[in-house]
Amino acid sequence: MQDLPVYRATLEAAWIDYNGHLRDAYYGLVASYAVDAVMDHLGIDAAYRERTSCTLYTLEMHIHYLNEVKFTDALEIHSSVLDFDAKRIHVGCLFSCERVETPVAAAEFMLMHVHQGDKPASLRMPESTLDILAELKSSAAAGAPFAPGSRKIEIKRR
Amino acid sequence: MQDLPVYRATLEAAWIDYNGHLRDAYYGLVASYAVDAVMDHLGIDAAYRERTSCTLYTLEMHIHYLNEVKFTDALEIHSSVLDFDAKRIHVGCLFSCERVETPVAAAEFMLMHVHQGDKPASLRMPESTLDILAELKSSAAAGAPFAPGSRKIEIKRR
Repeated sequence: MQDLPVYRATLEAAWIDYNGHLRDAYYGLVASYAVDAVMDHLGIDAAYRERTSCTLYTLEMHIHYLNEVKFTDALEIHSSVLDFDAKRIHVGCLFSCERVETPVAAAEFMLMHVHQGDKPASLRMPESTLDILAELKSSAAAGAPFAPGSRKIEIKRR
Repeated sequence: MQDLPVYRATLEAAWIDYNGHLRDAYYGLVASYAVDAVMDHLGIDAAYRERTSCTLYTLEMHIHYLNEVKFTDALEIHSSVLDFDAKRIHVGCLFSCERVETPVAAAEFMLMHVHQGDKPASLRMPESTLDILAELKSSAAAGAPFAPGSRKIEIKRR
């Protein structure tokens, strides 16, 4: 069993909005940094990007905001590999802080492995990365289901 | 017919990532600023927030990344009211720039009107805001459907 490292975020004062808590977009920035750490873990790090001109592009992101986050909160992001194929990775990130018992946010990303040339094109990931992904997906599947999951955003009427 | 003002974003150098384009999270920041402009238009502005202790909280955000955005791109965000009820607003944001013919990103937000006390609680919006929302929703419904729409993030297998 293999797990991804926990990402610990240091909040900046400029990220706090007029409501006195973390502006919605900065949850995304924290999650984006957490995904950078996931990339390093998968071997898609700066050296790999330099050597191969390959990297990951984000295709989609969804965030559920579950609780206010304040400047004094130390955020921890637990990431997991929810799914993958030869070119794509579906990552989930749960945000937690000591003040609140349940997750304060949940984010999902769909990432695609891309060769950056004149025209960027999707490309199969290296076997070593696919091997790590397989282990991480098994590990995530053995744990609690990721919740709340991404979905169509809509006002439902009864 | 009433339309929302177009939001024009000035990109900052620090927002560009190792791939040479706008980091995923900063699309969210640009959209978040565009939503601030929507709030002003709806009368949920700084003076209203100060006077009533009411504001909008973001419940969910979904972004589709459709094209790379570069530092030199001047981004325009066209926002529309896709739906609303007495307490919630569903906003869509389309990102465009001159270099690319089709939208470079699409974002959706679900926002909730909240009274910020010791314990934040959802609250019906003022009638004047609901009236503006009704006009904006009619206007959006008369235009092209918002696309691509938010959805469950998943790898579909055939």
